[in-house]
Parts: sequence; structure tokens; C-alpha cells
Amino acid sequence: MKQWCRTGATLLLGAGLGAAGSRLLRLRGGEEEEDRAALLHRLPVIPVPTVQASELTVSPGTSAAVMKYGFPSLTNIKTRESYVSSYDPRTRTASWVIERLNPDSLNGSSNRKYCDFKEDESVHTFHRSTNDDYRGSGFDRGHLAAAANHKWSQKAMDDTFYLSNVAPQNPQLNQVTWNNLEKLCRSLTRRYVNVYVCSGPLYLPRQEADGKLYVHYQVIGRNHVAVPTHFFKVLILEQVGGKGVELRSYVLPNEPVDEKLPLERFLVPIETIERASGLLFVPNIMKRTSSVNAIK
Amino acid sequence: MKQWCRTGATLLLGAGLGAAGSRLLRLRGGEEEEDRAALLHRLPVIPVPTVQASELTVSPGTSAAVMKYGFPSLTNIKTRESYVSSYDPRTRTASWVIERLNPDSLNGSSNRKYCDFKEDESVHTFHRSTNDDYRGSGFDRGHLAAAANHKWSQKAMDDTFYLSNVAPQNPQLNQVTWNNLEKLCRSLTRRYVNVYVCSGPLYLPRQEADGKLYVHYQVIGRNHVAVPTHFFKVLILEQVGGKGVELRSYVLPNEPVDEKLPLERFLVPIETIERASGLLFVPNIMKRTSSVNAIK
Repeated sequence: MKQWCRTGATLLLGAGLGAAGSRLLRLRGGEEEEDRAALLHRLPVIPVPTVQASELTVSPGTSAAVMKYGFPSLTNIKTRESYVSSYDPRTRTASWVIERLNPDSLNGSSNRKYCDFKEDESVHTFHRSTNDDYRGSGFDRGHLAAAANHKWSQKAMDDTFYLSNVAPQNPQLNQVTWNNLEKLCRSLTRRYVNVYVCSGPLYLPRQEADGKLYVHYQVIGRNHVAVPTHFFKVLILEQVGGKGVELRSYVLPNEPVDEKLPLERFLVPIETIERASGLLFVPNIMKRTSSVNAIK
Repeated sequence: MKQWCRTGATLLLGAGLGAAGSRLLRLRGGEEEEDRAALLHRLPVIPVPTVQASELTVSPGTSAAVMKYGFPSLTNIKTRESYVSSYDPRTRTASWVIERLNPDSLNGSSNRKYCDFKEDESVHTFHRSTNDDYRGSGFDRGHLAAAANHKWSQKAMDDTFYLSNVAPQNPQLNQVTWNNLEKLCRSLTRRYVNVYVCSGPLYLPRQEADGKLYVHYQVIGRNHVAVPTHFFKVLILEQVGGKGVELRSYVLPNEPVDEKLPLERFLVPIETIERASGLLFVPNIMKRTSSVNAIK
């Protein structure tokens, strides 16, 4: 039997996520399969890349393996040595980046001292961010797929330094709480067979003095690189013995965060991220597993 | 010989378009073909839908004909009776909508009194706008592909009432200047074989009191439908006798506009729209014609 549980974990995001809480899907038992199938049929008819079972047993570097639970969107997909991303040419950053962590991908002799941040030449110059855009902006070049997750290959680690895998991030967030969340992802590889991590920017509205909701974000540099208001990480945790997957989804504000706050405080229902980002995770995941448990 | 001319028409948009003016491409003569080919190779490797010559002679309703000059992006493409659109699930509006106007498409007995704005059920409920979102917002449901452009078929006109072909628009802009621009597009069918019109929203940054650039826009309704700061229209004007195409590109602010201002005041170089929207028009157009003239 399928288990399906979405819990309203502490929501720190204020008005911007108002629509989410009031419409949580609570599908259970036999109906859910039918409802979900109907829902999938309403999606745009674009072929979804399929992954053969045989592709799932290959080396950490084969990006086909990263796709096991599907893509949250099909826009400007880029396949790298050890992650897959979707690029948003309007904001000049990725919409999402997916990577797969396990002991094989985490261990190796790669060293970030050999890595330099570099422009992504696969992006048209009109829509590409450059190192100059970040210089003097006050923002870090925050990795979406983390460098330290890809020690198995120097090429894989190098690939995380494409500026298309980077977004302007508050330095304190990048160096403390976001870093702690990345460490948590790595530590979870001790308990789960594979840890799929999908990270991306959010642009959340907030209420202003006139009582209306507005999205407000800075853009930096000559190329107007968007500074996200928040970042998300969705963790798809593959349980031992084929017992299905657990989901954990986090949203962090792009500002200094008190490092004493436990990471659990940033857990949100996955639907919150799906609504705010324009992406879909659950329908794809449901096609690939018999059991999903959202973290309480 | 190819002609290629981009002129710096009056730019009414302020700081938001700063990057555009300083980097205008000025390719001429033999080099341009090579440069453009190199530029195309740097684009993401996604198959571009191709159109056979035979498809270009069909009835106004065949959406394949709309695609003659390619798509400005390949995201969430929706094909309707008489237009093609690309949907942005994050903003809950289209990124662009392309239609083809000629005397055949403009004439017929269709009547908008039989049309009602309706939700687009091909969009997931998380990312779909509804009539309720617009109610009491102070914004019109502004058509991107205009209803009056598709009188040849009631179904074609009906299709323009999908809320995925609509964005929150200032009522005065919608009813006066935007409407005048739509009328201009229709009147141009008297001089050109076909008038291809691509319309969409823009979210342009502006400088705030701290000297930095910010994007700031309202979201309306339970589904947080984004209110664009500006709208664009790109006109691809097909000349008689196979003499190539002329381009005209307009940007209008989403606010009341003095109706005495001539529409020419809103002309901008196409590159301005390409940079700000994350879309590309020129590389696709260049594949389909031997001559492009940008309007002075």
C-alpha cells in the first residue's frame, strides 16, 4: 500500500506562501492513483525523458542516474558530469539543479583549489552571468550543486563551478546555514542508499504597506543577475531494501540566518515549493516509487 | 546581400535596460553568417521544431504556420487553433504568444460576445490563474493574442480567452494604447503579406533610493498571478515579393499611457527585449529569411 503524508511543518516564510497552506492535497488509499493520473494528463504534452533501469547502476558520473525521479521541469536542460540543471535565461541563474549523493560520489581526491568559477558558454551572451557581475556586489557565488558533493572526479567538481550552477547568495547564509544544510545532505548518505538533492532559487512575494503582495528582488552586474529572495533544497532519500523514498524540503531566506536555529525549522511542505517555484516534484517521484513519506 | 540594421530607437525604459544600449550587435556582410552560426552553437542543444515549406500555405488556423520564424524559447509550448504560446508556471502567465495576421485571419463572423475567459486546464492547478485571481484586483485580463485578430473562426477567437493567453494589465493601457497597438498590427496586413506578432510580459528592474537595481512587481489573487511591469510586442512583417522581413519591437509600461503619445515612441531595439525577457528572436528569424530590416 502506498503511504502519502504531507504535514504542515513550521512555515517561516510569511505571506508569500499564503496559497500553499490552505490547499494541501491529502490523497489517500485507492483514489489517489486515479487523481494523480488525471492530474498528470492535464500537464503540457511534452515528452518526459525516460530512464531505463539499467542506467541506474552506473558510475556516479553518469547524469542519467541523476534523473531517476524525473525532472521538475523541462526547460533548458543541461547535463553535466555529475548533475543536471535547468536554466532560466531571464534571471541568469538555474531554476533547479539535481545531483545524486552516495559514498561513491562523495569520496575522491578532487580538490577545489584547482577549480575556478567560469561562464557557461552554452548560454547565449545576452542571458549569461559573468564573474564581473558578482564582483563588488556583496553577494557570494553560491553553489546550487555543492562542490564537495562531487569529490569522485575532478571534472565533476570543476563542473559545479559553472556560473549557471550558481546564484547570488548572502555570504553569511552561504558560509554558515546553507553550508550546514549541504553537510546534512552528505551525512544522510550514511542512512540512505542514495540522496537526490534538488536546489534552486525562489522569488517569494511579501505584503507591503498598502496591504498588497509584491515580489521584490535585486539584480546585480551588467547582466542583471537576479538575487533570489530565498533558496530551496528538496531531498529525495532512497531507503535501504527498496522501501520507497522519504522527502524533505527546505526553504531558507537569502539573508544571514542565526546559526543556532536548527535546520528543521526550515522544513516546509513540498507543495509550498512546487507552488512558489512553478516546478513539480511529486508527480514524477510517484512514477518511480511505491511509497513516499514526507518528513514530519 | 543581407541587410542588417539595428537602430537605437527612443528608449523610454530607464535604468532597467542599461545593459542593452552599450552592446548592440552590429554584424554586417560575410562575417555575420559565421558569427551567427557560432552563436547558435552555443545555445542549449534542444531540438528546434522545424516547419516544412508546404506547411506555410495552409489555412489561418494551422498553428504550424505561426511557427515560420521559429520560437523565442522552447518552454511549455501550447498550440491553439490560431496561436502558439509558451507558459511560465512561476508567474502564471505566458512568457510569449505568437500569432499570424493576414486578411484571411482577420475577417469572419466570430463574435466575442460568445467568448468567456476560462482557466487553462492544461496547466497544473498549482500554477494556473483563475478568474477569481483577477476579480477586484484592479487589473484587466489583458489579451496577449488579441481576440479581434482571429475572427476567421469562433474556435480560434474562443481560444484567445484562455487565461494562459492573458496577463494582469492596467485597464487604461489595455483599453487605449495597447488596443491602438493591436489595431496597428491589423492595419499592417494591408501592406505586408503576413504580420507575425509575438507578445509577452516583462519584469524590468529600476533603480531605487539606495542606487541599486531592483525588480518589483505585484502578484494578485490566491494563485499569486504576476503583474508585469511592462509588455512587449515584436512584429515580424513579411514583405511582398519575397523581399525579406521588417522587424518592429515595442515595449509599453503596464500603467496608464497618454494616448496622445505616438506608438513610435515605444519602439526599442529588438535586443532590448531579447536581453530583458530571456528570449531570442533574431537567430530564429535569420534562419528563415535572406533579409531583415529593423525599423528605424
